[in-house]
Amino acid sequence: MSSPERRQITGFSNPTIKRLKSLREKKHRKREGHFLAEGLRILTEALDAGKTPKLLVVIEDTDLHPLAEKIEAATFAAGGEVIETSEAIIAKLSGKSNPQSIIGIYEDHPTALADIDRNASDIWLVAQALRDPGNLGTILRTGDAVGAGGLILIDDCVDPFSVEAVRASMGAIFTQHVAQAPWPDFIDWLRSGTGQLVGTSLNTDKDYQAVRYEAPTFLLIGNEAQGLPQDYEAACDVLVKMPMMGKADSLNAAVASAVMAYEVLNQRRK
Amino acid sequence: MSSPERRQITGFSNPTIKRLKSLREKKHRKREGHFLAEGLRILTEALDAGKTPKLLVVIEDTDLHPLAEKIEAATFAAGGEVIETSEAIIAKLSGKSNPQSIIGIYEDHPTALADIDRNASDIWLVAQALRDPGNLGTILRTGDAVGAGGLILIDDCVDPFSVEAVRASMGAIFTQHVAQAPWPDFIDWLRSGTGQLVGTSLNTDKDYQAVRYEAPTFLLIGNEAQGLPQDYEAACDVLVKMPMMGKADSLNAAVASAVMAYEVLNQRRK
Repeated sequence: MSSPERRQITGFSNPTIKRLKSLREKKHRKREGHFLAEGLRILTEALDAGKTPKLLVVIEDTDLHPLAEKIEAATFAAGGEVIETSEAIIAKLSGKSNPQSIIGIYEDHPTALADIDRNASDIWLVAQALRDPGNLGTILRTGDAVGAGGLILIDDCVDPFSVEAVRASMGAIFTQHVAQAPWPDFIDWLRSGTGQLVGTSLNTDKDYQAVRYEAPTFLLIGNEAQGLPQDYEAACDVLVKMPMMGKADSLNAAVASAVMAYEVLNQRRK
Repeated sequence: MSSPERRQITGFSNPTIKRLKSLREKKHRKREGHFLAEGLRILTEALDAGKTPKLLVVIEDTDLHPLAEKIEAATFAAGGEVIETSEAIIAKLSGKSNPQSIIGIYEDHPTALADIDRNASDIWLVAQALRDPGNLGTILRTGDAVGAGGLILIDDCVDPFSVEAVRASMGAIFTQHVAQAPWPDFIDWLRSGTGQLVGTSLNTDKDYQAVRYEAPTFLLIGNEAQGLPQDYEAACDVLVKMPMMGKADSLNAAVASAVMAYEVLNQRRK
């Protein structure tokens, strides 16, 4: 099904294709204020969240999935552009061996800390110096699942709008607020209102199930390798740890966030 | 600190370097029965678990960390070989921009289903058609943390001895049993003894906290995209689901395993 309004691109060296490819790099995303999302499932989540792509890329000469047709119609309706191109070019853009057949370019939408309504949710996730985009995206996905308001990124974290983070979020990048702030700004903002700051740490004997969490709860997760800096731990209202029965002393950062977040949710729903 | 017993390799085309590099591919791991592990933390976990490398690679002309010295001594004591080479060659082997400074080759150690003592632990993790090596390694790491006996891989899963899985396991590949079996073999084995098979599923309204789990509990997690096949779900003793408060209907597979496993552990320790 070819639509007359679509633009067809056949060459790898086309400037639009080059621009799309450049969005895999953080500096180009920052400069343009746009990011890439791939795959029907994630683009559908975006549409459900009211986000339409500025630019949509589909494979030429193939019938679109009904959900993809909806996304295309919404893209046109919002004044966006739709491009059809070859599978080979999509594969090159995607950088994966099994590339997705649909790619969207969206405006990034960071939230300023000052614009966060902390009482809009009982749970907020906070990550410090997170290095792995898969972990970041997975934390966003968990945040959506537990009804968190969003994710606040402290200090130098990996870009939440990277292709890998967006993919791991499974669309939660479109539904969760994402704010970024240096630690002093975060603490100032946090202490200007209500909120319990809970740190996960090895430096405590307090079991994570022995604490009654107060809303809104801010769950603070440290860097994958180092955990939280000592003064960040000192600023927490409470430090907790999860039982570790084996040889290792820590969980994966996304796993730790999820186990904590479900404990808070479980206490609330009792 | 140069040891006289070390062998020095300076060229990329050295057969041992080529062999090391080949172990990044599954077919070569299978043929040799060996796999690569990288980094001091993981190699130390291996040593603590009584596993020494057949071959250890360190950077030439640098002082070893005391823990690395222990690993080198253990390697020699067990009749293994130690190679020193340039940072450039290690970087090429590692394929990472910040390569680890120490790499070990270990014998792989799959466990046959028949050799598993199911009563050795109250929790066993079971994953079906898992595609992502990071998820697999993270599940192993969580298994260690909750005191699971090991991970049983059903059907066609990603290789647990891949570099990415080993890395994500943070050493749990050396402490957790890892078995692989087709579904019919697994079910035959499971039903030949005690054990509650618990599936996580969207096709149930039973809350995961509303079930009293019986030891040994086998927690079954499905493929990242498809979840569990219908007949696999039908074979479970109980299907449960975690509350999903947001837009998405599922959690990351490693996150779902962890939230389930901590619930089982929490019930046991009450």
